[in-house]
Amino acid sequence: MVREYKVGILGASGAVGREVLNCLAARGFPYSEILALASERSAGGQLDFPGGDLTVTAVTPESFKGLDLAIFSAGAAASREFAPLAARCGCPVVDNSSCWRMDDRVPLVVPEVNSRALRGHRGIIANPNCSTIQMLVALKPIYDAVGIRRIVVATYQAVSGTGREAVEELADQTRQLYNLQEVTRKVYPHRIAFNCLPQIDAFTENGYTGEEMKMLNETRKIFGDDRIRVSATCVRVPVFHGHSEAVWIETGRPIEPGAARELMRRAPGILVVDEPENGRYPMPIDAVGRDEVFVGRVRADLSCENGLTMWIVSDNLRKGAATNAVEIAELLIRDPELLKTSWEW
Amino acid sequence: MVREYKVGILGASGAVGREVLNCLAARGFPYSEILALASERSAGGQLDFPGGDLTVTAVTPESFKGLDLAIFSAGAAASREFAPLAARCGCPVVDNSSCWRMDDRVPLVVPEVNSRALRGHRGIIANPNCSTIQMLVALKPIYDAVGIRRIVVATYQAVSGTGREAVEELADQTRQLYNLQEVTRKVYPHRIAFNCLPQIDAFTENGYTGEEMKMLNETRKIFGDDRIRVSATCVRVPVFHGHSEAVWIETGRPIEPGAARELMRRAPGILVVDEPENGRYPMPIDAVGRDEVFVGRVRADLSCENGLTMWIVSDNLRKGAATNAVEIAELLIRDPELLKTSWEW
Repeated sequence: MVREYKVGILGASGAVGREVLNCLAARGFPYSEILALASERSAGGQLDFPGGDLTVTAVTPESFKGLDLAIFSAGAAASREFAPLAARCGCPVVDNSSCWRMDDRVPLVVPEVNSRALRGHRGIIANPNCSTIQMLVALKPIYDAVGIRRIVVATYQAVSGTGREAVEELADQTRQLYNLQEVTRKVYPHRIAFNCLPQIDAFTENGYTGEEMKMLNETRKIFGDDRIRVSATCVRVPVFHGHSEAVWIETGRPIEPGAARELMRRAPGILVVDEPENGRYPMPIDAVGRDEVFVGRVRADLSCENGLTMWIVSDNLRKGAATNAVEIAELLIRDPELLKTSWEW
Repeated sequence: MVREYKVGILGASGAVGREVLNCLAARGFPYSEILALASERSAGGQLDFPGGDLTVTAVTPESFKGLDLAIFSAGAAASREFAPLAARCGCPVVDNSSCWRMDDRVPLVVPEVNSRALRGHRGIIANPNCSTIQMLVALKPIYDAVGIRRIVVATYQAVSGTGREAVEELADQTRQLYNLQEVTRKVYPHRIAFNCLPQIDAFTENGYTGEEMKMLNETRKIFGDDRIRVSATCVRVPVFHGHSEAVWIETGRPIEPGAARELMRRAPGILVVDEPENGRYPMPIDAVGRDEVFVGRVRADLSCENGLTMWIVSDNLRKGAATNAVEIAELLIRDPELLKTSWEW
């Protein structure tokens, strides 16, 4: 008999939480019970789920007793409070927030890239930033084959990355503009409808935003390579779902675009869509609801030796968040070593 | 008495042509007469203009006789046919199309960057691509101070750069999506509403698009520097007006972001908007209807020595097209040497 697991989903009613539920169902994750958890404010709500709606329960320090694992998508504050509590009572946590990502005790995992980092985990595993995940899935086969010294990336990020209120904000503002009404805003500092916002997350001292620094720091941690250099400009665009990235890399040894494309074609999690002459390249509207990372427009970087440039698109709520977290959970249940009875925090 | 000029506007009813008319009026260009010209198809139409509507006349080889200068925004085919005819009869042409830009006999001019290239012109002067203009206006003071070896640029381009039909297409598709109607398209190969299209212009053999190669070739011609290296990814985003660019440069000698910002503040045509801590940075919605190139988010490139990165925004129909063309026309009438009686073609 296949073992089944009791799974807790913290932040179950949020944009990512709902996608985690979809993902568990769609991928046939072997669960015996799903416990939908959220803050007091969201408790009592009903969530669609195959085999019967789920009722959202308010999270407490006791919630994790008896659970086999949990996936958190409730923001950094909730993760800081509840992840150690869960780990202590033997419920390993796959955490979608930024809270634990750079903690030395916490592995930061993209299954296609560094699943080995899970060995010896201490009950908290961090899911990387959405922009980082899709970039590294695409670059991993090239990194392994010829090395990557430098990455320059400009992002085109969808509003769903911010959450459900941001999706509503883009929808509302667009409607307001069409109806000649005053444009209101709650989530973003400026109008997002028919605009580009060159700010994602707060600004840090060096002029980069938190999101941009995540792309540097998380890349180094996931590749286990402190020498790789990354400069990112992260931009919110009026797209509902799907992040796009224009990426330039400088490789350690030369590689032809055709060879890079071939490596990516054979790598897990990547779908190469690169027939520009037929108008085929990755686009956010085609990536929605898909788990793959789409790569196209692979070509030589005309501005540097040993350089390539490409266009990488993925559904930020799927591979950028929910799918990656569920894939980590799948790795956990595959190896009894990774599911212990408790961890110290 | 101030001399006044008879000015022909070919493509007067197009998106750029209308902006040229606005620009001539707004900047107080000394005209005695404006002749609005267009293809047979658009002839007879009326165009708003201060001091009386203009009636659009069908262009013929005889249209340019007696005109002092002309501004063309009617596409490459019309420019190829009519620009030499105009020049031959003493009417110099400022041409917005891509037709003549790389012709050795034709100067390619951004007034803030290389107005000297106008000396000895032969009656046809090319206006650069919108994406190139705004980038070079911003980079010129840095280029002059410390040199620039390499440019990497990702663009976020508005639909108005394609023309009036594209503006209607974005508006129509957005409305169709809101009304749950089928999305129709005529201009772009894929839906543009709430999407990103990594294709502007046709693809060339090396995998870059025509637009991307323009950013390389035109930069070299305007800077007069065949060694500068440029790699561009040009992307259409669902924005009506205003092109944005994430730009990375490698300079010849090191320069601090603060010093670069100061150079740009003092340079003509640039407005530095760079107070991220107060949520102030360039955005397309703020650039619309303005003639300046907006620069912000100036910071060190964390991925390279002697590197800077910045965010450049401008109204693509103004400085990216109409304003730049009218500024060239202003330079022509300021110097009698530049207005001769005829040129051989």
